[in-house]
Amino acid sequence: MHRFYMPVRVFEGGGCVLKNEEIWAKLGKRALIVTGKTSAARSGALEDVIDVLDSVGIAHTVYDNVRNNPTVENAHDAGGLGREFAADFVIGIGGGSPLDAAKAAAVFAVNDIKPMEVYGEAANAPLPVVCIPTTAGTGSEVTPYSVLTVDSLETKVTLKGDHIFPKYAFLDSGYIRSMPPDIAVYTALDALCHCVESVLNTQNSPLSEAAALEGLRIIGRYIGAAKTAPIDDEAGEQLLRASMLAGVAIAQTGTNTIHSVGYALTYYKNMQHGHANGILLTPFMKYASKYVPDEAGEIYKALGVEGYNGLKALIASLDLQCPEISGEEAESFSAKTIKSASLAKNLWRITQEEEKNMILQREV
Amino acid sequence: MHRFYMPVRVFEGGGCVLKNEEIWAKLGKRALIVTGKTSAARSGALEDVIDVLDSVGIAHTVYDNVRNNPTVENAHDAGGLGREFAADFVIGIGGGSPLDAAKAAAVFAVNDIKPMEVYGEAANAPLPVVCIPTTAGTGSEVTPYSVLTVDSLETKVTLKGDHIFPKYAFLDSGYIRSMPPDIAVYTALDALCHCVESVLNTQNSPLSEAAALEGLRIIGRYIGAAKTAPIDDEAGEQLLRASMLAGVAIAQTGTNTIHSVGYALTYYKNMQHGHANGILLTPFMKYASKYVPDEAGEIYKALGVEGYNGLKALIASLDLQCPEISGEEAESFSAKTIKSASLAKNLWRITQEEEKNMILQREV
Repeated sequence: MHRFYMPVRVFEGGGCVLKNEEIWAKLGKRALIVTGKTSAARSGALEDVIDVLDSVGIAHTVYDNVRNNPTVENAHDAGGLGREFAADFVIGIGGGSPLDAAKAAAVFAVNDIKPMEVYGEAANAPLPVVCIPTTAGTGSEVTPYSVLTVDSLETKVTLKGDHIFPKYAFLDSGYIRSMPPDIAVYTALDALCHCVESVLNTQNSPLSEAAALEGLRIIGRYIGAAKTAPIDDEAGEQLLRASMLAGVAIAQTGTNTIHSVGYALTYYKNMQHGHANGILLTPFMKYASKYVPDEAGEIYKALGVEGYNGLKALIASLDLQCPEISGEEAESFSAKTIKSASLAKNLWRITQEEEKNMILQREV
Repeated sequence: MHRFYMPVRVFEGGGCVLKNEEIWAKLGKRALIVTGKTSAARSGALEDVIDVLDSVGIAHTVYDNVRNNPTVENAHDAGGLGREFAADFVIGIGGGSPLDAAKAAAVFAVNDIKPMEVYGEAANAPLPVVCIPTTAGTGSEVTPYSVLTVDSLETKVTLKGDHIFPKYAFLDSGYIRSMPPDIAVYTALDALCHCVESVLNTQNSPLSEAAALEGLRIIGRYIGAAKTAPIDDEAGEQLLRASMLAGVAIAQTGTNTIHSVGYALTYYKNMQHGHANGILLTPFMKYASKYVPDEAGEIYKALGVEGYNGLKALIASLDLQCPEISGEEAESFSAKTIKSASLAKNLWRITQEEEKNMILQREV
């Protein structure tokens, strides 16, 4: 049985933050803005948000201390500020880190609980959340997930549930033009992996697949443009769109193997999330071509590449650097991630040996 | 600026009505079932619904008097029964007619208003609605529309608004297997037109287009199978899926020219809704090929046909009968429909002359 649910109201287009005063006005009188140190300001998104809040008379406070791969404590801090400020709603601005932190902060803002208690049943429904992406990769603006780092477990743990779906998403490709090219490539790869892991997923459904395949068609065509900064207008708009489509897909299915293993590379090797996923994609697809050739073929076709070798060439063209990873590290990372519940959704039963080969970039 | 919103929870798969007792149990204690005389019972859907309601202790009453192309009075009657019965929620079972009637009945059930007042602001929010399609064409299970006939205006008038989005949709292709072949073809054509009118639409958005193009890919492949009764399992499942995808698309964009003109043919010439749309499709696409060749090309490509002539051959293979329509009738129908507000969403400015040619099946 398939399910589909994606209740976020998505607005897309230049100026969409400023053009929707009536939407903002309905959200309340006091806003908590959750963001990182740089991209919200650099992109112009923070300025637009403050402008529109001021214009409709909404008081606001800014928590701009979200770090990369935010910890659950980091989100707890942000939520604490929202509670003190008596915020009516939360606005996340940035890449996946601030958006995910904003969703958890919306829970903490109305529940005086300890950080790890966010994963349990909170008494009060979270505040409404508005998401404004400044990268084209996370798709967090349309998902019911908040991926947070839990240091005691040495990995990321995903907070999930319909209660943390954002209420609104504003997609303005003007905000992603200031992405540095490495981030543009990494985030596009993240979106690409979202599509791949959603299609090669036991939870794949007709609507999630339609979104994922359309995402792949766009990414296949425009990912090369991510290498040039600033990204050109059309490519930026298209990649932001693809990232959202990929988000719609994983909102239904979740991710599986690549993300699971990628979290270990991010945690232990300090790799950017999309970069970690990107280097795992090609060896993963080699297995996919072997175990689920029909589904892998759909992916290649949507990407517009000639089979596995075409994908390999596409990824090679992005010049991804791969860190040195030892055999012991690969053993340790794979031993840790092979137990991940999300692997059960992989279309074939993946083994620890296969994970190790993916990590070591070994083609089998 | 694009928008996307589709908050319906969709369940898809054999037995999905019976397998989700917890969903039903949460909806309340008393249910109004809205359906027509034949398809709900013939399909097995009504029996399944009554079984699951009984199993979780929900009292129910059945309004099975929805006629084809239901009038607003017809929906008012259904809602009146719901009010008397003090229903907590409404279940629509059938093709577009019962589903659309159910949505309006959900408004009437909690608002003691006159039929035409449903188009205004009702005091009370409608009851939650569950939709179970027994045809593969309407897509009503995922749209915020209820298309009702208003005899005083001699046409259909669409009730629309986020308040009438169904809460749940259950798609079980087992329920559509008993469709007579003419209905299977007509409803598939309706879904095809939904996709076409959504793509060739000023409101087209990335997600609506992804849904529409995927719908077209499926319909292009399986519409031929609709001619055989009972429809085979795979084709039935795929066409039900495509119909839902088409519904997701028009939930964002609405329909435009074909539906607008089609309503006149249904009202005055008593043509089945999808049949009326189906005969208008080819002449409409001739104009599309001329005025918006890129977008028309996308449609042909998704359908898997070679341009306009390929579409013409595909439609010809369905052996649609066309009623005698006089020049005066065409003049009258086009004069009436050219004022329709939905035409403003057509990608080019359509003229009355073009509408007349569509109605008269004249290729220009």
